[in-house]
Amino acid sequence: MKSLLIKTLLAVLLLANAAFAAEPLPSWNDTGPKKAIVTFVEKVTKEGSPDFVPMAERIATFDNDGTLWAEQPMYFQFFFALDRVKALAPQHPEWKDKEPFASLLKGDVKGALAGGERAMIEIVMTTHAGMTTEEFEKIVKDWLASAKHPKTKRPYTEMVYQPMLELLTYLRANGFKTFIVSGGGVEFMRPWTEKVYGIPPEQVVGSSIKTKFEMRDGRPVLVRLPEIDFIDDKAAKPVGINSRIGRRPIAAFGNSDGDLQMFQWTSAGAGARLAVIIHHTDAEREWAYDRTSSIGGLDKALDEAQAKGWTVVDMKNDWKRVFAFEQ
Amino acid sequence: MKSLLIKTLLAVLLLANAAFAAEPLPSWNDTGPKKAIVTFVEKVTKEGSPDFVPMAERIATFDNDGTLWAEQPMYFQFFFALDRVKALAPQHPEWKDKEPFASLLKGDVKGALAGGERAMIEIVMTTHAGMTTEEFEKIVKDWLASAKHPKTKRPYTEMVYQPMLELLTYLRANGFKTFIVSGGGVEFMRPWTEKVYGIPPEQVVGSSIKTKFEMRDGRPVLVRLPEIDFIDDKAAKPVGINSRIGRRPIAAFGNSDGDLQMFQWTSAGAGARLAVIIHHTDAEREWAYDRTSSIGGLDKALDEAQAKGWTVVDMKNDWKRVFAFEQ
Repeated sequence: MKSLLIKTLLAVLLLANAAFAAEPLPSWNDTGPKKAIVTFVEKVTKEGSPDFVPMAERIATFDNDGTLWAEQPMYFQFFFALDRVKALAPQHPEWKDKEPFASLLKGDVKGALAGGERAMIEIVMTTHAGMTTEEFEKIVKDWLASAKHPKTKRPYTEMVYQPMLELLTYLRANGFKTFIVSGGGVEFMRPWTEKVYGIPPEQVVGSSIKTKFEMRDGRPVLVRLPEIDFIDDKAAKPVGINSRIGRRPIAAFGNSDGDLQMFQWTSAGAGARLAVIIHHTDAEREWAYDRTSSIGGLDKALDEAQAKGWTVVDMKNDWKRVFAFEQ
Repeated sequence: MKSLLIKTLLAVLLLANAAFAAEPLPSWNDTGPKKAIVTFVEKVTKEGSPDFVPMAERIATFDNDGTLWAEQPMYFQFFFALDRVKALAPQHPEWKDKEPFASLLKGDVKGALAGGERAMIEIVMTTHAGMTTEEFEKIVKDWLASAKHPKTKRPYTEMVYQPMLELLTYLRANGFKTFIVSGGGVEFMRPWTEKVYGIPPEQVVGSSIKTKFEMRDGRPVLVRLPEIDFIDDKAAKPVGINSRIGRRPIAAFGNSDGDLQMFQWTSAGAGARLAVIIHHTDAEREWAYDRTSSIGGLDKALDEAQAKGWTVVDMKNDWKRVFAFEQ
């Protein structure tokens, strides 16, 4: 009990330090988006202000792919699936002649995906189901410990945006509870989000497959089934927020049309609201893509942002730094 | 920012007060269960102890019906459904001749439930679906503000167990994160769990029906559909814990066979574990029921508790008080 007290006092000191000593958001330029974020936070945290929001209701939701970490040249979870296909191939000699695996094993991703959504689902189910939840967690952790991004040769968990890490910390220092609401697999994210983002597993909402409770040698396990439970994208993001969080966010952060309904849902609540779109405009430090991209396409949400006055972050002009590993 | 700091300091003072000034669990007798709980908490919070658990992993899950509040003579949510049938009847003249509604409207609950699970599902869907999530929340709040328990004539939110409220506070003061994992409807619980138990909506896991995102007059809503999404009972409790919380609890509290798999799942983790069954043994202050009860039946879990040394709370002997309103 004494140690909890000391820890909490320490947390208060750290909080005081964060609040008074350091300028928030050091990797953000002093342009519009930083001002919009700081103004919003000051307004909802100022007691007595008409926009004040009690701490328990300060819910902020973040998309993951393209919002907290990169998503090019392909969603990182798909690289994981490809590596799993290679790792599992020796146990599946039949894959040599079976699509989409035959193409994948020849390194022909485009050919593999010619089979469309069905091919994609087959790849995901083959690589994400059939094991226990504990086994899958270990597979994800082992992969992250060795896999490298094809362009930067960095571990994927270093491909996170430094300004967004600062934003997460800043919001939490101001009493916000930060959640991930992502189309990515929830059990692909949970093993590392606490360490990388400071977001614990119970604050990660994502897509999922079904699991089944079973006794194996007298020990209970949850077995991952090749059956979709929930796809947390587009109109399903507000559904996931409602079902998993049960409270409407007051701030939402995303980067694609997959986040449009989350922005609409967040903005439609009473009182001050913040909707922030990360616009990928920096081909040099990261990637530049929007309306026509097959990964992270940003078209309708960009139009609606302009019409509704949502905040759009121009990565090239609004961020001093994109990745922590930059010089 | 300053106000957050003051609030946090205040929280620390309150914590210090809870930790050092007051004897924990005043409504518990100094019998086995209280000792088991306190011993467990001291052990997992003592830094350097072999059983120490970092704060982030101190997850405790609580069943609701029969564990945090009463469940006799019938699950309270079912009283809610019955009252809704009566309230909606004027709009449904056809119910006069249609089961299960005809029997219900005549006050014949037993006759209505003769239709078994199908009748039950029809009653739930008719009363819980077809409106937006905001409308449903208001319906639940309005009902709770006026409805009274048939035996005690108290509001249902007063039918909560005082020793369990103290236990929730005690665990949180020791760095635990407390969750509800209940077979009850998640959106039936969330409107009041924060006020009554100190458990925020995002820490409530329960059964749910599907919702659909829709634009109505340019405003986004979530419409509740007459379709089951998830039944959070028995073998599905560990499934719900895994999908919504993503971390195995170190302590679980329940009262029926519906909690058996949650106990098994909790107990199977590494390190110190606590599984506590609330055994309804007090016909005078509450109700006495177990193996053969159709509501909150406790049979297999009681046997397994004895075999595995789980803690069984004998309400009559282990609790000084059951409800706060007792003299």
